[in-house]
Amino acid sequence: MSEEINLIIRQAIPDDAENLLYTLNQIRQETDFLTMDENDVNISIEFQRHQLENIYESENNVLILAFDGEKIIGSISVHANSQHRIKHIGEIGISILKEYWGLGLGSILLEEAIYWAKESGIIRRLELTVQKRNQKAIHLYEKFGFQTETIMQRGAVDEQDNFLDVHLMSLLIDPE
Amino acid sequence: MSEEINLIIRQAIPDDAENLLYTLNQIRQETDFLTMDENDVNISIEFQRHQLENIYESENNVLILAFDGEKIIGSISVHANSQHRIKHIGEIGISILKEYWGLGLGSILLEEAIYWAKESGIIRRLELTVQKRNQKAIHLYEKFGFQTETIMQRGAVDEQDNFLDVHLMSLLIDPE
Repeated sequence: MSEEINLIIRQAIPDDAENLLYTLNQIRQETDFLTMDENDVNISIEFQRHQLENIYESENNVLILAFDGEKIIGSISVHANSQHRIKHIGEIGISILKEYWGLGLGSILLEEAIYWAKESGIIRRLELTVQKRNQKAIHLYEKFGFQTETIMQRGAVDEQDNFLDVHLMSLLIDPE
Repeated sequence: MSEEINLIIRQAIPDDAENLLYTLNQIRQETDFLTMDENDVNISIEFQRHQLENIYESENNVLILAFDGEKIIGSISVHANSQHRIKHIGEIGISILKEYWGLGLGSILLEEAIYWAKESGIIRRLELTVQKRNQKAIHLYEKFGFQTETIMQRGAVDEQDNFLDVHLMSLLIDPE
């Protein structure tokens, strides 16, 4: 990465469907740290578009995209359930193209998501799971105040189907 | 409950859809301990039937029903994801009609689910969440070897929208 990045951060809209799928498929093949891997079935553009519509219209869900020009290079999602008793709990998911790792994009996206959560008026707890071997990510989350609630045994498997420890981390959100 | 129960335990089939919805709606109104409450939208019989088909055909999902004669009086589900990295993690959900509480039905259902998990060859970790105030359920799970991994702050809200502590409990499953 010698060139500069023309960084744009904004919420996803339905028209981002195809572009997003393209990037997600690349990320799935590049990293072993995500729950979704290259063995998982691809979804259709139409289904992705429909999902983006639902997220865009939801009060307690968001998908924020990072672009380099017109290319999607990373994303952060906050997913919350519609059920009343748990609709204040948002689960965070981050993915970034490998080519753009190490540039602070994770921090930028996480800051945006936490800001969105505080503004939402609904989200009062953010949580996420992260493989213990992904120490860089764990340190990033800690930098933003996330605390490890527990390390779950057998929280995932690696590429050779060995069990992995997985951190459950959370951050309480209070409107400012 | 003065009469005897004509107890039948078996896996759910698609034809149970209507009967199951009837019981689940009643349970939702009776208890404050479930994530799903009376405010959540009802689903259609056709959708329920479709879900039961998927569960029945799945290798890492199951729904076991308890009947008193022809009436569904309780259920236990093990829900696992299809994604390769986490397909060995089964989440337990139990619900029982109030009229049938205190009769040991929870133990019977839990024993069936753990047996099914061991036989599945896929499930290697069972987990569940349970409100801290539901001490009877927590003791039941502990009796079967589940351990509290953490108590999650703001894991749910009560009837007055106050935050509740929620236990995350798990049990490792090894084929015998």
